Amino acid sequence: MPDVSSTLPESDALEFSDCGAFDAASREAVYRVIGERRDMRHFRPDPVDPEVLQRLLEAAHHAPSVGYMQPWRFLRIVDPALRASLRAHVSAEQERTAEACGEKAAEVHRLKLEGIREAGELLVVALTDGRERYVLGRRTLPEMDLCSAACGIQNLWLAARAEGLGMGWVSLFDPDWLAQTLHMPEGAYPMAILCLGHVEAFYDRPMLEQTGWDQRRTLSDLVFQDRWDQGADRAEPGSGAAPGSAAYAGKDRS
Amino acid sequence: MPDVSSTLPESDALEFSDCGAFDAASREAVYRVIGERRDMRHFRPDPVDPEVLQRLLEAAHHAPSVGYMQPWRFLRIVDPALRASLRAHVSAEQERTAEACGEKAAEVHRLKLEGIREAGELLVVALTDGRERYVLGRRTLPEMDLCSAACGIQNLWLAARAEGLGMGWVSLFDPDWLAQTLHMPEGAYPMAILCLGHVEAFYDRPMLEQTGWDQRRTLSDLVFQDRWDQGADRAEPGSGAAPGSAAYAGKDRS
Repeated sequence: MPDVSSTLPESDALEFSDCGAFDAASREAVYRVIGERRDMRHFRPDPVDPEVLQRLLEAAHHAPSVGYMQPWRFLRIVDPALRASLRAHVSAEQERTAEACGEKAAEVHRLKLEGIREAGELLVVALTDGRERYVLGRRTLPEMDLCSAACGIQNLWLAARAEGLGMGWVSLFDPDWLAQTLHMPEGAYPMAILCLGHVEAFYDRPMLEQTGWDQRRTLSDLVFQDRWDQGADRAEPGSGAAPGSAAYAGKDRS
Repeated sequence: MPDVSSTLPESDALEFSDCGAFDAASREAVYRVIGERRDMRHFRPDPVDPEVLQRLLEAAHHAPSVGYMQPWRFLRIVDPALRASLRAHVSAEQERTAEACGEKAAEVHRLKLEGIREAGELLVVALTDGRERYVLGRRTLPEMDLCSAACGIQNLWLAARAEGLGMGWVSLFDPDWLAQTLHMPEGAYPMAILCLGHVEAFYDRPMLEQTGWDQRRTLSDLVFQDRWDQGADRAEPGSGAAPGSAAYAGKDRS
Protein backbone atom coordinates (compact mmCIF):
# COMPACT_ATOMS: atom_id res chain seq x y z
CA MET A 1 0.00 0.00 0.00
CA PRO A 2 1.13 3.53 -0.71
CA ASP A 3 1.88 5.99 2.02
CA VAL A 4 -1.51 7.30 3.06
CA SER A 5 -0.42 9.02 6.23
CA SER A 6 -1.33 12.44 4.88
CA THR A 7 -4.30 14.10 6.48
CA LEU A 8 -7.57 14.31 4.63
CA PRO A 9 -8.22 17.57 2.83
CA GLU A 10 -10.51 20.25 4.10
CA SER A 11 -14.05 19.61 3.03
CA ASP A 12 -16.06 21.91 5.28
CA ALA A 13 -17.65 23.63 2.32
CA LEU A 14 -19.20 20.45 0.94
CA GLU A 15 -22.45 18.78 1.88
CA PHE A 16 -22.32 15.04 2.44
CA SER A 17 -25.01 12.41 2.57
CA ASP A 18 -24.43 9.25 4.52
CA CYS A 19 -25.88 6.62 2.23
CA GLY A 20 -22.93 4.21 2.01
CA ALA A 21 -23.21 0.78 0.47
CA PHE A 22 -26.46 -0.58 -0.96
CA ASP A 23 -28.16 -3.56 0.68
CA ALA A 24 -27.42 -6.96 -0.84
CA ALA A 25 -30.55 -7.13 -3.01
CA SER A 26 -29.99 -3.67 -4.47
CA ARG A 27 -26.33 -4.38 -5.09
CA GLU A 28 -27.32 -7.59 -6.82
CA ALA A 29 -29.74 -5.67 -9.05
CA VAL A 30 -26.93 -3.35 -10.12
CA TYR A 31 -24.64 -6.23 -11.07
CA ARG A 32 -27.53 -8.02 -12.75
CA VAL A 33 -28.38 -5.09 -15.00
CA ILE A 34 -24.70 -4.72 -15.92
CA GLY A 35 -24.51 -8.42 -16.76
CA GLU A 36 -27.80 -8.68 -18.66
CA ARG A 37 -27.56 -5.50 -20.74
CA ARG A 38 -27.21 -6.40 -24.41
CA ASP A 39 -26.56 -4.55 -27.64
CA MET A 40 -29.88 -5.44 -29.28
CA ARG A 41 -30.64 -5.48 -32.98
CA HIS A 42 -33.96 -7.35 -32.92
CA PHE A 43 -37.04 -5.44 -31.79
CA ARG A 44 -40.78 -5.65 -31.63
CA PRO A 45 -42.38 -2.55 -33.14
CA ASP A 46 -44.52 -1.60 -30.09
CA PRO A 47 -44.09 2.05 -29.09
CA VAL A 48 -42.13 3.05 -25.99
CA ASP A 49 -44.16 4.57 -23.15
CA PRO A 50 -43.36 8.32 -23.10
CA GLU A 51 -43.01 8.26 -19.31
CA VAL A 52 -40.46 5.47 -19.54
CA LEU A 53 -38.59 7.37 -22.26
CA GLN A 54 -38.50 10.39 -19.98
CA ARG A 55 -37.00 8.30 -17.17
CA LEU A 56 -34.37 6.91 -19.53
CA LEU A 57 -33.36 10.37 -20.72
CA GLU A 58 -33.15 11.56 -17.11
CA ALA A 59 -30.87 8.60 -16.40
CA ALA A 60 -28.63 9.63 -19.30
CA HIS A 61 -28.62 13.23 -18.08
CA HIS A 62 -27.35 12.05 -14.68
CA ALA A 63 -24.10 10.78 -16.16
CA PRO A 64 -20.80 12.27 -15.05
CA SER A 65 -19.44 14.94 -17.35
CA VAL A 66 -16.00 16.49 -17.56
CA GLY A 67 -16.09 19.93 -15.96
CA TYR A 68 -19.87 19.37 -15.55
CA MET A 69 -20.28 20.43 -19.20
CA GLN A 70 -23.22 18.08 -19.93
CA PRO A 71 -22.33 17.98 -23.63
CA TRP A 72 -25.08 15.55 -24.65
CA ARG A 73 -28.08 16.42 -26.82
CA PHE A 74 -30.84 13.96 -27.79
CA LEU A 75 -32.79 14.05 -31.03
CA ARG A 76 -35.94 11.96 -31.21
CA ILE A 77 -36.54 10.80 -34.76
CA VAL A 78 -40.30 10.69 -35.26
CA ASP A 79 -40.71 11.48 -38.96
CA PRO A 80 -41.10 8.14 -40.80
CA ALA A 81 -39.36 9.52 -43.91
CA LEU A 82 -36.41 10.62 -41.83
CA ARG A 83 -36.24 7.21 -40.18
CA ALA A 84 -36.26 5.55 -43.57
CA SER A 85 -33.49 7.86 -44.73
CA LEU A 86 -31.31 6.96 -41.76
CA ARG A 87 -32.00 3.29 -42.35
CA ALA A 88 -30.89 3.51 -45.98
CA HIS A 89 -27.75 5.44 -45.04
CA VAL A 90 -26.77 2.90 -42.37
CA SER A 91 -27.47 0.03 -44.72
CA ALA A 92 -25.13 1.53 -47.33
CA GLU A 93 -22.45 2.10 -44.69
CA GLN A 94 -22.71 -1.55 -43.65
CA GLU A 95 -21.85 -2.49 -47.22
CA ARG A 96 -18.86 -0.14 -47.23
CA THR A 97 -17.75 -1.58 -43.91
CA ALA A 98 -18.06 -5.11 -45.28
CA GLU A 99 -15.81 -4.16 -48.20
CA ALA A 100 -13.29 -2.65 -45.76
CA CYS A 101 -13.25 -5.88 -43.74
CA GLY A 102 -11.55 -7.89 -46.49
CA GLU A 103 -11.75 -11.61 -45.79
CA LYS A 104 -14.58 -11.05 -43.31
CA ALA A 105 -16.69 -9.13 -45.84
CA ALA A 106 -19.29 -11.85 -46.32
CA GLU A 107 -19.68 -12.27 -42.58
CA VAL A 108 -20.16 -8.52 -42.04
CA HIS A 109 -22.65 -8.44 -44.88
CA ARG A 110 -24.75 -11.12 -43.14
CA LEU A 111 -24.73 -9.62 -39.64
CA LYS A 112 -27.81 -7.79 -38.45
CA LEU A 113 -26.25 -4.65 -37.02
CA GLU A 114 -29.22 -2.36 -36.44
CA GLY A 115 -32.95 -2.33 -35.79
CA ILE A 116 -33.75 1.12 -37.17
CA ARG A 117 -36.81 -0.02 -39.07
CA GLU A 118 -38.42 -1.95 -36.23
CA ALA A 119 -37.44 -0.28 -32.95
CA GLY A 120 -40.25 1.62 -31.24
CA GLU A 121 -38.04 4.62 -30.62
CA LEU A 122 -35.12 6.05 -32.57
CA LEU A 123 -32.73 8.54 -30.96
CA VAL A 124 -29.64 10.34 -32.14
CA VAL A 125 -27.15 11.45 -29.49
CA ALA A 126 -24.87 14.34 -30.37
CA LEU A 127 -22.26 16.49 -28.70
CA THR A 128 -23.38 20.09 -28.61
CA ASP A 129 -21.56 22.91 -30.35
CA GLY A 130 -19.38 25.40 -28.49
CA ARG A 131 -17.48 22.77 -26.55
CA GLU A 132 -14.19 24.63 -26.98
CA ARG A 133 -15.29 26.88 -24.09
CA TYR A 134 -14.90 23.97 -21.68
CA VAL A 135 -11.27 23.54 -20.66
CA LEU A 136 -11.44 21.98 -17.19
CA GLY A 137 -10.38 18.33 -17.54
CA ARG A 138 -10.01 18.78 -21.29
CA ARG A 139 -6.84 20.82 -21.78
CA THR A 140 -4.82 17.70 -22.57
CA LEU A 141 -7.69 15.26 -23.23
CA PRO A 142 -10.34 17.17 -25.19
CA GLU A 143 -12.04 13.89 -26.11
CA MET A 144 -13.39 13.66 -22.55
CA ASP A 145 -16.61 15.27 -23.87
CA LEU A 146 -17.17 12.17 -25.97
CA CYS A 147 -16.45 9.97 -22.95
CA SER A 148 -18.99 11.89 -20.85
CA ALA A 149 -21.72 11.38 -23.42
CA ALA A 150 -20.79 7.70 -23.71
CA CYS A 151 -21.31 7.38 -19.95
CA GLY A 152 -24.74 8.95 -20.46
CA ILE A 153 -25.58 6.44 -23.16
CA GLN A 154 -24.48 3.61 -20.86
CA ASN A 155 -26.79 4.96 -18.13
CA LEU A 156 -29.66 5.00 -20.62
CA TRP A 157 -28.80 1.49 -21.75
CA LEU A 158 -28.78 0.06 -18.23
CA ALA A 159 -32.01 1.82 -17.26
CA ALA A 160 -33.64 0.53 -20.44
CA ARG A 161 -32.60 -3.04 -19.57
CA ALA A 162 -34.14 -2.67 -16.11
CA GLU A 163 -37.35 -1.44 -17.79
CA GLY A 164 -37.32 -4.49 -20.04
CA LEU A 165 -36.43 -2.46 -23.13
CA GLY A 166 -33.64 -3.32 -25.53
CA MET A 167 -31.20 -0.85 -27.00
CA GLY A 168 -28.59 -0.93 -29.73
CA TRP A 169 -25.85 1.64 -30.40
CA VAL A 170 -25.39 2.03 -34.15
CA SER A 171 -22.17 3.69 -35.35
CA LEU A 172 -22.47 2.79 -39.02
CA PHE A 173 -22.93 6.30 -40.37
CA ASP A 174 -21.05 9.27 -41.75
CA PRO A 175 -21.19 11.94 -39.02
CA ASP A 176 -21.05 14.74 -41.61
CA TRP A 177 -24.08 13.35 -43.40
CA LEU A 178 -26.05 12.85 -40.20
CA ALA A 179 -25.17 16.31 -38.86
CA GLN A 180 -26.38 17.92 -42.08
CA THR A 181 -29.47 15.77 -42.28
CA LEU A 182 -30.51 16.79 -38.76
CA HIS A 183 -29.57 20.47 -39.29
CA MET A 184 -26.91 20.50 -36.61
CA PRO A 185 -24.93 23.69 -36.11
CA GLU A 186 -21.23 23.84 -36.86
CA GLY A 187 -19.27 22.12 -34.12
CA ALA A 188 -22.02 19.74 -33.04
CA TYR A 189 -21.16 16.09 -33.55
CA PRO A 190 -23.50 13.07 -33.81
CA MET A 191 -21.95 10.07 -32.06
CA ALA A 192 -24.76 7.52 -31.87
CA ILE A 193 -27.95 6.32 -33.45
CA LEU A 194 -29.82 4.50 -30.71
CA CYS A 195 -32.46 1.91 -31.51
CA LEU A 196 -34.63 1.54 -28.43
CA GLY A 197 -37.68 -0.58 -27.89
CA HIS A 198 -39.45 -3.70 -26.81
CA VAL A 199 -37.86 -7.02 -27.71
CA GLU A 200 -39.08 -10.58 -27.93
CA ALA A 201 -36.31 -11.51 -25.53
CA PHE A 202 -32.75 -10.52 -24.76
CA TYR A 203 -29.78 -12.42 -26.15
CA ASP A 204 -28.24 -14.74 -23.55
CA ARG A 205 -24.79 -13.62 -24.60
CA PRO A 206 -23.52 -10.77 -26.79
CA MET A 207 -24.75 -11.31 -30.34
CA LEU A 208 -21.24 -11.09 -31.77
CA GLU A 209 -20.26 -13.90 -29.41
CA GLN A 210 -23.27 -16.03 -30.34
CA THR A 211 -22.51 -15.65 -34.03
CA GLY A 212 -18.86 -16.63 -33.49
CA TRP A 213 -17.45 -13.22 -34.41
CA ASP A 214 -15.30 -13.08 -31.27
CA GLN A 215 -15.06 -14.25 -27.64
CA ARG A 216 -14.95 -12.42 -24.35
CA ARG A 217 -11.34 -12.04 -23.23
CA THR A 218 -10.16 -13.43 -19.90
CA LEU A 219 -10.18 -10.50 -17.49
CA SER A 220 -6.84 -11.35 -15.88
CA ASP A 221 -5.17 -10.87 -19.28
CA LEU A 222 -6.37 -7.25 -19.28
CA VAL A 223 -5.16 -6.22 -15.83
CA PHE A 224 -1.55 -5.15 -15.31
CA GLN A 225 0.36 -3.80 -12.35
CA ASP A 226 2.38 -0.56 -12.37
CA ARG A 227 3.46 -1.05 -15.99
CA TRP A 228 2.01 -2.42 -19.18
CA ASP A 229 1.79 -6.18 -19.60
CA GLN A 230 3.98 -7.09 -16.67
CA GLY A 231 3.82 -10.83 -16.11
CA ALA A 232 1.86 -11.44 -19.31
CA ASP A 233 3.09 -13.77 -22.02
CA ARG A 234 3.17 -11.33 -24.87
CA ALA A 235 6.38 -9.55 -23.92
CA GLU A 236 9.31 -10.02 -21.60
CA PRO A 237 9.04 -7.78 -18.55
CA GLY A 238 11.63 -5.10 -18.95
CA SER A 239 12.03 -5.75 -22.67
CA GLY A 240 11.97 -2.01 -22.97
CA ALA A 241 10.07 -1.56 -26.20
CA ALA A 242 10.26 2.14 -26.94
CA PRO A 243 6.90 3.79 -26.34
CA GLY A 244 5.64 5.87 -29.22
CA SER A 245 3.45 8.95 -29.16
CA ALA A 246 0.29 8.39 -27.20
CA ALA A 247 -1.72 11.08 -28.97
CA TYR A 248 -5.21 9.67 -29.43
CA ALA A 249 -5.00 8.29 -32.94
CA GLY A 250 -8.57 7.24 -33.54
CA LYS A 251 -9.11 9.78 -36.29
CA ASP A 252 -5.91 9.03 -38.16
CA ARG A 253 -7.42 6.09 -39.94
CA SER A 254 -10.65 7.62 -41.12
CA MET B 1 -45.13 6.66 -35.28
CA PRO B 2 -43.10 5.42 -38.24
CA ASP B 3 -44.24 2.64 -40.48
CA VAL B 4 -43.45 -0.50 -38.58
CA SER B 5 -45.45 -2.89 -40.69
CA SER B 6 -42.37 -4.71 -41.90
CA THR B 7 -41.92 -8.20 -40.60
CA LEU B 8 -39.36 -8.94 -37.98
CA PRO B 9 -36.05 -10.29 -39.22
CA GLU B 10 -35.03 -13.90 -39.06
CA SER B 11 -33.44 -14.69 -35.74
CA ASP B 12 -33.47 -18.47 -35.65
CA ALA B 13 -29.71 -18.62 -35.21
CA LEU B 14 -29.75 -16.62 -31.99
CA GLU B 15 -30.40 -17.78 -28.45
CA PHE B 16 -32.79 -15.70 -26.41
CA SER B 17 -33.44 -15.52 -22.71
CA ASP B 18 -36.83 -14.43 -21.47
CA CYS B 19 -35.89 -12.17 -18.60
CA GLY B 20 -37.86 -9.04 -19.53
CA ALA B 21 -38.28 -6.14 -17.15
CA PHE B 22 -36.87 -6.13 -13.63
CA ASP B 23 -39.22 -6.11 -10.63
CA ALA B 24 -39.96 -2.71 -9.11
CA ALA B 25 -37.37 -2.94 -6.31
CA SER B 26 -34.58 -3.96 -8.67
CA ARG B 27 -35.54 -1.26 -11.17
CA GLU B 28 -35.50 1.25 -8.34
CA ALA B 29 -32.00 0.11 -7.34
CA VAL B 30 -30.77 0.74 -10.88
CA TYR B 31 -32.18 4.28 -10.95
CA ARG B 32 -30.89 4.89 -7.44
CA VAL B 33 -27.32 3.95 -8.28
CA ILE B 34 -27.47 6.14 -11.39
CA GLY B 35 -28.75 9.05 -9.31
CA GLU B 36 -26.38 8.64 -6.35
CA ARG B 37 -23.14 7.99 -8.25
CA ARG B 38 -20.75 10.90 -7.72
CA ASP B 39 -17.38 11.97 -9.06
CA MET B 40 -15.54 11.78 -5.74
CA ARG B 41 -12.36 13.59 -4.81
CA HIS B 42 -12.40 13.02 -1.02
CA PHE B 43 -11.43 9.57 0.22
CA ARG B 44 -10.55 7.68 3.36
CA PRO B 45 -7.28 5.79 2.94
CA ASP B 46 -8.61 2.31 3.87
CA PRO B 47 -7.68 -0.33 1.31
CA VAL B 48 -10.23 -1.77 -1.12
CA ASP B 49 -11.14 -5.42 -0.60
CA PRO B 50 -9.49 -7.38 -3.45
CA GLU B 51 -12.68 -9.39 -4.01
CA VAL B 52 -14.67 -6.20 -4.40
CA LEU B 53 -12.07 -4.82 -6.81
CA GLN B 54 -12.36 -8.01 -8.82
CA ARG B 55 -16.15 -7.58 -9.05
CA LEU B 56 -15.73 -3.98 -10.16
CA LEU B 57 -13.29 -4.92 -12.90
CA GLU B 58 -15.65 -7.68 -14.05
CA ALA B 59 -18.41 -5.08 -14.22
CA ALA B 60 -16.21 -2.86 -16.39
CA HIS B 61 -15.34 -5.82 -18.60
CA HIS B 62 -19.06 -6.42 -19.22
CA ALA B 63 -19.49 -3.09 -20.98
CA PRO B 64 -20.57 -2.98 -24.60
CA SER B 65 -17.75 -2.59 -27.07
CA VAL B 66 -17.80 -1.68 -30.73
CA GLY B 67 -17.29 -4.82 -32.82
CA TYR B 68 -16.79 -6.65 -29.48
CA MET B 69 -13.20 -5.37 -29.47
CA GLN B 70 -12.95 -4.97 -25.66
CA PRO B 71 -10.27 -2.30 -26.02
CA TRP B 72 -9.89 -1.62 -22.28
CA ARG B 73 -6.81 -2.41 -20.21
CA PHE B 74 -6.50 -1.72 -16.48
CA LEU B 75 -3.27 -0.87 -14.69
CA ARG B 76 -3.26 -1.08 -10.91
CA ILE B 77 -0.81 1.41 -9.46
CA VAL B 78 0.63 -0.17 -6.32
CA ASP B 79 4.15 1.29 -6.15
CA PRO B 80 4.04 4.26 -3.72
CA ALA B 81 6.73 6.12 -5.67
CA LEU B 82 4.74 5.74 -8.88
CA ARG B 83 1.62 6.98 -7.16
CA ALA B 84 3.51 10.01 -5.88
CA SER B 85 4.82 10.67 -9.38
CA LEU B 86 1.31 10.60 -10.84
CA ARG B 87 0.10 12.91 -8.08
CA ALA B 88 2.82 15.46 -8.82
CA HIS B 89 2.12 15.32 -12.55
CA VAL B 90 -1.62 15.84 -12.08
CA SER B 91 -1.00 18.67 -9.64
CA ALA B 92 1.17 20.47 -12.19
CA GLU B 93 -1.44 19.93 -14.89
CA GLN B 94 -4.09 21.47 -12.63
CA GLU B 95 -1.93 24.62 -12.48
CA ARG B 96 -1.60 24.69 -16.27
CA THR B 97 -5.35 24.19 -16.58
CA ALA B 98 -5.97 27.05 -14.15
CA GLU B 99 -3.79 29.34 -16.29
CA ALA B 100 -5.71 28.25 -19.39
CA CYS B 101 -9.02 29.11 -17.71
CA GLY B 102 -8.33 32.85 -17.65
CA GLU B 103 -10.76 34.65 -15.36
CA LYS B 104 -11.63 31.38 -13.62
CA ALA B 105 -7.97 30.60 -12.84
CA ALA B 106 -8.22 31.26 -9.10
CA GLU B 107 -11.33 29.10 -8.86
CA VAL B 108 -9.71 26.20 -10.73
CA HIS B 109 -6.65 26.55 -8.53
CA ARG B 110 -8.80 26.11 -5.41
CA LEU B 111 -10.87 23.13 -6.58
CA LYS B 112 -9.97 19.70 -5.27
CA LEU B 113 -9.97 17.71 -8.49
CA GLU B 114 -8.39 14.39 -7.51
CA GLY B 115 -7.79 12.08 -4.57
CA ILE B 116 -4.68 10.33 -5.83
CA ARG B 117 -2.82 10.56 -2.53
CA GLU B 118 -5.65 9.30 -0.35
CA ALA B 119 -7.71 6.82 -2.37
CA GLY B 120 -7.31 3.18 -1.37
CA GLU B 121 -6.89 2.07 -4.96
CA LEU B 122 -5.46 3.83 -8.00
CA LEU B 123 -6.16 2.55 -11.50
CA VAL B 124 -5.21 3.73 -14.96
CA VAL B 125 -7.51 2.75 -17.82
CA ALA B 126 -5.98 2.64 -21.29
CA LEU B 127 -6.97 1.63 -24.78
CA THR B 128 -4.87 -1.24 -26.01
CA ASP B 129 -2.55 -1.03 -29.00
CA GLY B 130 -3.39 -2.57 -32.36
CA ARG B 131 -6.88 -1.08 -32.51
CA GLU B 132 -6.55 -0.31 -36.21
CA ARG B 133 -7.39 -3.98 -36.88
CA TYR B 134 -10.95 -3.36 -35.68
CA VAL B 135 -13.06 -1.83 -38.42
CA LEU B 136 -16.61 -2.98 -37.65
CA GLY B 137 -18.52 0.04 -36.34
CA ARG B 138 -15.35 2.17 -36.59
CA ARG B 139 -14.87 2.81 -40.30
CA THR B 140 -16.42 6.25 -40.03
CA LEU B 141 -16.30 6.70 -36.23
CA PRO B 142 -12.96 5.28 -35.07
CA GLU B 143 -13.40 7.01 -31.70
CA MET B 144 -15.99 4.36 -30.77
CA ASP B 145 -13.15 2.48 -29.02
CA LEU B 146 -12.90 5.37 -26.57
CA CYS B 147 -16.67 5.33 -26.11
CA SER B 148 -16.63 1.59 -25.36
CA ALA B 149 -14.01 2.01 -22.66
CA ALA B 150 -15.95 4.97 -21.22
CA CYS B 151 -19.00 2.68 -20.91
CA GLY B 152 -16.77 0.25 -19.04
CA ILE B 153 -15.64 2.97 -16.66
CA GLN B 154 -19.27 3.95 -16.08
CA ASN B 155 -20.10 0.32 -15.22
CA LEU B 156 -17.22 0.27 -12.75
CA TRP B 157 -18.38 3.59 -11.28
CA LEU B 158 -21.95 2.42 -10.73
CA ALA B 159 -20.87 -0.91 -9.25
CA ALA B 160 -18.49 0.92 -6.92
CA ARG B 161 -21.32 3.16 -5.74
CA ALA B 162 -23.48 0.12 -4.99
CA GLU B 163 -20.55 -1.32 -2.99
CA GLY B 164 -20.32 1.94 -1.04
CA LEU B 165 -17.05 2.94 -2.71
CA GLY B 166 -16.39 6.32 -4.26
CA MET B 167 -14.63 6.89 -7.55
CA GLY B 168 -13.26 9.89 -9.39
CA TRP B 169 -12.18 10.09 -13.04
CA VAL B 170 -9.09 12.28 -13.34
CA SER B 171 -8.24 13.59 -16.81
CA LEU B 172 -5.64 16.17 -15.75
CA PHE B 173 -2.60 14.52 -17.33
CA ASP B 174 -0.53 14.44 -20.47
CA PRO B 175 -1.32 11.10 -22.15
CA ASP B 176 2.16 10.94 -23.69
CA TRP B 177 3.79 11.30 -20.30
CA LEU B 178 1.53 8.73 -18.68
CA ALA B 179 1.97 6.23 -21.52
CA GLN B 180 5.75 6.48 -21.24
CA THR B 181 5.71 6.36 -17.45
CA LEU B 182 3.71 3.13 -17.51
CA HIS B 183 5.77 1.62 -20.39
CA MET B 184 2.82 1.40 -22.75
CA PRO B 185 3.48 0.12 -26.27
CA GLU B 186 3.09 2.37 -29.28
CA GLY B 187 -0.58 2.84 -30.07
CA ALA B 188 -1.87 2.29 -26.54
CA TYR B 189 -3.60 5.31 -25.06
CA PRO B 190 -4.24 6.15 -21.37
CA MET B 191 -7.66 7.79 -20.99
CA ALA B 192 -8.31 7.84 -17.25
CA ILE B 193 -6.70 7.87 -13.84
CA LEU B 194 -9.31 6.44 -11.50
CA CYS B 195 -9.23 7.17 -7.78
CA LEU B 196 -11.25 4.46 -6.06
CA GLY B 197 -11.87 3.91 -2.41
CA HIS B 198 -13.83 4.32 0.76
CA VAL B 199 -15.28 7.73 1.49
CA GLU B 200 -16.58 9.46 4.60
CA ALA B 201 -19.80 10.05 2.70
CA PHE B 202 -20.97 10.80 -0.81
CA TYR B 203 -21.69 14.34 -1.98
CA ASP B 204 -25.43 15.07 -2.06
CA ARG B 205 -25.03 16.76 -5.42
CA PRO B 206 -22.16 16.91 -7.95
CA MET B 207 -19.22 18.70 -6.33
CA LEU B 208 -18.98 21.21 -9.18
CA GLU B 209 -22.63 22.07 -8.52
CA GLN B 210 -22.09 22.43 -4.77
CA THR B 211 -19.15 24.74 -5.30
CA GLY B 212 -21.15 26.90 -7.71
CA TRP B 213 -19.07 26.04 -10.77
CA ASP B 214 -22.15 25.20 -12.85
CA GLN B 215 -25.75 23.94 -12.63
CA ARG B 216 -27.49 20.91 -14.05
CA ARG B 217 -29.27 21.88 -17.29
CA THR B 218 -33.00 21.40 -17.69
CA LEU B 219 -33.44 18.15 -19.57
CA SER B 220 -36.14 19.45 -21.89
CA ASP B 221 -33.65 22.00 -23.26
CA LEU B 222 -31.44 19.13 -24.41
CA VAL B 223 -34.07 17.09 -26.27
CA PHE B 224 -34.98 17.97 -29.85
CA GLN B 225 -37.25 16.37 -32.41
CA ASP B 226 -36.14 15.38 -35.92
CA ARG B 227 -33.82 18.37 -36.22
CA TRP B 228 -31.51 20.37 -33.99
CA ASP B 229 -33.07 22.82 -31.56
CA GLN B 230 -36.56 22.79 -33.03
CA GLY B 231 -38.85 24.68 -30.71
CA ALA B 232 -36.03 25.93 -28.49
CA ASP B 233 -35.43 29.60 -27.89
CA ARG B 234 -31.91 29.82 -29.17
CA ALA B 235 -32.73 29.77 -32.86
CA GLU B 236 -35.72 30.17 -35.09
CA PRO B 237 -36.91 26.84 -36.45
CA GLY B 238 -35.97 26.73 -40.06
CA SER B 239 -33.45 29.54 -39.73
CA GLY B 240 -31.26 27.33 -41.86
CA ALA B 241 -27.86 28.05 -40.38
CA ALA B 242 -25.42 26.29 -42.66
CA PRO B 243 -24.06 23.20 -40.96
CA GLY B 244 -20.30 22.93 -40.99
CA SER B 245 -18.09 19.88 -41.02
CA ALA B 246 -19.01 17.44 -38.28
CA ALA B 247 -15.61 15.76 -38.12
CA TYR B 248 -14.92 15.10 -34.46
CA ALA B 249 -12.83 18.13 -33.56
CA GLY B 250 -11.84 17.29 -30.01
CA LYS B 251 -8.17 17.02 -30.83
CA ASP B 252 -7.97 20.27 -32.80
CA ARG B 253 -7.58 22.35 -29.68
CA SER B 254 -4.88 20.37 -27.92
